Amino acid sequence: MDSTLENLKYDANGMIGAIIQDDATGEVLMFAFMNKESIDLTVKTGKTHFFSRSRNKLWLKGESSGHIQHVKSIATDCDKDALLIEVEQVGAACHDGYYSCFYRRHERGAPDWKVQGERVFDPEKVYHK
Amino acid sequence: MDSTLENLKYDANGMIGAIIQDDATGEVLMFAFMNKESIDLTVKTGKTHFFSRSRNKLWLKGESSGHIQHVKSIATDCDKDALLIEVEQVGAACHDGYYSCFYRRHERGAPDWKVQGERVFDPEKVYHK
Repeated sequence: MDSTLENLKYDANGMIGAIIQDDATGEVLMFAFMNKESIDLTVKTGKTHFFSRSRNKLWLKGESSGHIQHVKSIATDCDKDALLIEVEQVGAACHDGYYSCFYRRHERGAPDWKVQGERVFDPEKVYHK
Repeated sequence: MDSTLENLKYDANGMIGAIIQDDATGEVLMFAFMNKESIDLTVKTGKTHFFSRSRNKLWLKGESSGHIQHVKSIATDCDKDALLIEVEQVGAACHDGYYSCFYRRHERGAPDWKVQGERVFDPEKVYHK
């Protein structure tokens, strides 16, 4: 791993948050955590890798669905404690079938989040649930 | 606070990460944490409020600089553990003087992050350092 990536500010669990943005449209697709190993793999392979805190496991985005993210650029912020990664998204980012994971919009006074955007794929077919 | 915002997944410290995106251009401006109180104030006032974990303090974005963020929309992701907030940014988002906090870009093999974007303001003048 090069020194610039070593010198990011990882949290107490060795994690750094990564915002994934569509390179072509600017749409924010997802937010997930990376550790050093997943950043290293992301840079080396050009495909986003994350670390799942709930499953305690490194994962390649798209390993089950084929919905790979090809990395176009990696940026960090003033505090070096967050990443912004621009990608070319294959298929869709969200395992619920939406192009972006941020498909729920707040409406003041409404009883629940409002779904925005349309399903791009059927999760039951893709994940063989 | 309405029930949709109550039901977000806050971490062990009562925090949820918020991605701030420019409503007009789609540029990602910053990433910071909110607790319930800061989300509540954000919704009620229409101006982003965050919680600083290092200063252990609620803050209004722009309270020192005047660089307020007017909220245009609030979305959450499939896991309801992150927020995406679109804003109209007054001035610039970054206290280092750049429009976006993500002004450092990774270049493979380079010794340090490369600065992208230009300074919009002089931090010494704005913060009277």
